Amino acid sequence: MSKRRIYLNAFDMNTPGHQSPGLWAHPDDRSHRYKDSEYWIELAKLLEKWRFDGIFIADVLGTYDVYGGSRDTAVRHGVQSPVNDPFQIVPLMSAVTKNLGFGVTSSVTHEHPFTFARKMSTLDHLTNGRVGWNIVTSYLKSAAVNMGLEDQIKHDERYDIAEEYLQVCYKLWEASWEDDAVKVDKLNRIYADPEKVHDIRHEGKYYKVPGAHLSEPSPQRTPVLFQAGASTKGRAFAARNAELIFIGAPNIAAAKETVRKIREDIQKTGRSQDEVKILTMFVPIVGRTEEEAKQKYEDYRQYISKEGALALFGGWTGVDVSGYAPDQVISYIENDSIRSTLENFTKINLDRPSTVQDVIDAVGIGGMGAAAIGSPEQIADTMEQWVNEAGVDGFNIAYAITPGTFKDFGELVVPILRERGLVPEEYEGNTFRDNLFGKGDRLPNHHPGKQTKVLQLN
Amino acid sequence: MSKRRIYLNAFDMNTPGHQSPGLWAHPDDRSHRYKDSEYWIELAKLLEKWRFDGIFIADVLGTYDVYGGSRDTAVRHGVQSPVNDPFQIVPLMSAVTKNLGFGVTSSVTHEHPFTFARKMSTLDHLTNGRVGWNIVTSYLKSAAVNMGLEDQIKHDERYDIAEEYLQVCYKLWEASWEDDAVKVDKLNRIYADPEKVHDIRHEGKYYKVPGAHLSEPSPQRTPVLFQAGASTKGRAFAARNAELIFIGAPNIAAAKETVRKIREDIQKTGRSQDEVKILTMFVPIVGRTEEEAKQKYEDYRQYISKEGALALFGGWTGVDVSGYAPDQVISYIENDSIRSTLENFTKINLDRPSTVQDVIDAVGIGGMGAAAIGSPEQIADTMEQWVNEAGVDGFNIAYAITPGTFKDFGELVVPILRERGLVPEEYEGNTFRDNLFGKGDRLPNHHPGKQTKVLQLN
Repeated sequence: MSKRRIYLNAFDMNTPGHQSPGLWAHPDDRSHRYKDSEYWIELAKLLEKWRFDGIFIADVLGTYDVYGGSRDTAVRHGVQSPVNDPFQIVPLMSAVTKNLGFGVTSSVTHEHPFTFARKMSTLDHLTNGRVGWNIVTSYLKSAAVNMGLEDQIKHDERYDIAEEYLQVCYKLWEASWEDDAVKVDKLNRIYADPEKVHDIRHEGKYYKVPGAHLSEPSPQRTPVLFQAGASTKGRAFAARNAELIFIGAPNIAAAKETVRKIREDIQKTGRSQDEVKILTMFVPIVGRTEEEAKQKYEDYRQYISKEGALALFGGWTGVDVSGYAPDQVISYIENDSIRSTLENFTKINLDRPSTVQDVIDAVGIGGMGAAAIGSPEQIADTMEQWVNEAGVDGFNIAYAITPGTFKDFGELVVPILRERGLVPEEYEGNTFRDNLFGKGDRLPNHHPGKQTKVLQLN
Repeated sequence: MSKRRIYLNAFDMNTPGHQSPGLWAHPDDRSHRYKDSEYWIELAKLLEKWRFDGIFIADVLGTYDVYGGSRDTAVRHGVQSPVNDPFQIVPLMSAVTKNLGFGVTSSVTHEHPFTFARKMSTLDHLTNGRVGWNIVTSYLKSAAVNMGLEDQIKHDERYDIAEEYLQVCYKLWEASWEDDAVKVDKLNRIYADPEKVHDIRHEGKYYKVPGAHLSEPSPQRTPVLFQAGASTKGRAFAARNAELIFIGAPNIAAAKETVRKIREDIQKTGRSQDEVKILTMFVPIVGRTEEEAKQKYEDYRQYISKEGALALFGGWTGVDVSGYAPDQVISYIENDSIRSTLENFTKINLDRPSTVQDVIDAVGIGGMGAAAIGSPEQIADTMEQWVNEAGVDGFNIAYAITPGTFKDFGELVVPILRERGLVPEEYEGNTFRDNLFGKGDRLPNHHPGKQTKVLQLN
């Protein structure tokens, strides 16, 4: 049996019913409390108690409006709607924890890199080095049009913009203020040495940022970099830059194939495989016995919003199946840019083509990821299987109901993972990065962010 | 003696040495702890204990680089440099308080109104209706260039942009989601009624936002609106929109003149005078006796950074006095756009023209505002005098040292103001707005934000 450490991440969003459309209506679900600071404070304490490495907060800047050609389904069923800003909940959670990491989603079309870099540095300061950034390139047209963009920027160009956006951030985070720039020398009345603060002089295709970073160096400088792109260009971007890569796969075979491709891409960049952790989305539905778990699953299933599941599917794939019968087969999709998402669904049942009903079943609990139902031992066995067979490093645990799913998993499964030596009892580093990789707070030396240089004329 | 209630606001910034350049180096000053969440948590508790109405967090998106033609002075002396994001500290403070309000500065050139409106709604939800927005139009060229703007946008156009930016926000906050749109009806599985969620269909000169707000209605909907513009166009903007107006005046005569102009402007808009509170910046340096206060002031004065004061002055006025002797008179400034700021300084000593040294003395402790030195009774008398003679509604209290200035004021002066019936013992409302005006959580009916309508076609 493998003794490889399993990384545990919780997956949530500042919205009701994140990856389990309709389950906000379950009597035990508290996701409608997303507006209440106590929900986040209690969740953070719970996750740190069970030694989750981090919590990853998803985000979208639009409403799912492909299904039926309107947002009505998403609004009615609370399908990631309404959706609040993911940043403001991090300080609430960091104030009541010491080690839990926080991955926050922000799109490169959301905010200018000059102010975004300051926002991230601020959070890294206030959390003592516990933030990560999930880099996304906004996939919803309903987001783009509200930001004044005529239509969504083309998929490939989005990654060109993302690459330059990252360059600007790297320069601000890594190269603008030297390590010993800040003195806070009260005796000699020197706050910082201006000779050690440098303009970044960035002039690119999309951004022009001549000045210095507004923030002094934070514990990690660059936040831990998350990425979830599954397309060829997205994977290449992730292979160069990301430290945590999230995948969503309905089964081990599909995950294994995705992991293989990602590892190949990383190989090509010259980075070491152990600098990148791959986590797969996973909804554990656990009971004290297998029977209890199955009952729990059947109970949850009653709350799945079928239309809500198809609204999510519509937003992810661009495909509106509102006119189709449940047994309609979904197979021939001739659009490359959405294939990467759709492949996951067409592989739900490998022995036959997927139907609309298959999509509802798959998306209904756990969205794009896998669900596992069983006793604590069975769930732990399944997780080991994913690690050993698919080669993932850990799990991005989404909820069927919140905080119930996290609580059940913590109380019932984590003790078993600990017994098996797969999850450490204590946190092992001071910052999020150090905790994950055990090699200090900063990016490794040959990471492109660390390699970024600016002309030091002043 | 007047029994008019005095409003108390604390003034801080996510930076060392906010309005008292150089005083970060005083042994008792803790402003260099701005990166530490505990600084903000302790401050919020202190302010609520002494029943401050709110805390106002200033911000700049650039470094003061007019003095001597470089940012070196600002960096060396910690003059509002480095400067972190003002938003992330609000959830830290709101989690440990129940009634304190939070005014956050955000420039209309910082972020697109679609995402900004969501950020504010999120904070209003998480704080249970305790946020305010200080609307600014970025005055530093060093900010504009880093945001990709070739140069600062012209002063007057900045207010045109601000006006449209506000229109977009009003539509999203006030008119997109009806009051009863959100059901959270678990029984019938309806999160929200799509018939009651409306696209705003905004098409203006600067922004095009077709969609609906991403957030459901928050307790206040529109945050309490702060404004500090002193120019003619800025005052007109404030008169139409603002609920709290901040002024900085070195003495009662100057404040009285500014208040008179603001009240005239409000008169013209048809709004009632009691819908707008005017607060003046004020640094109380208080001792148990007058003698002790004077000693305290002399002690603080030793830490003023002269160059730092002139760096602030340079940023505010655009005037570089680095080549001038301390006794150089500053009088003939032929630039209308900066006159509104400079007037405050040229009035420091009404009996003779101001010199460079006068600017250092004035700006050194309390920036653009007035400082008062004395026993608790003397400070309370001075405050009453400002209220009765200048017609201000209260004070925006900046620190000489933090949290010392706030602590001294709370412990020594607030009890006297209470005794005199000028400051209530308890908070009087549930939200920031209700606390300030006692007329509910939302904007009054004839406020332009409340008047905003959107076409309800869906």
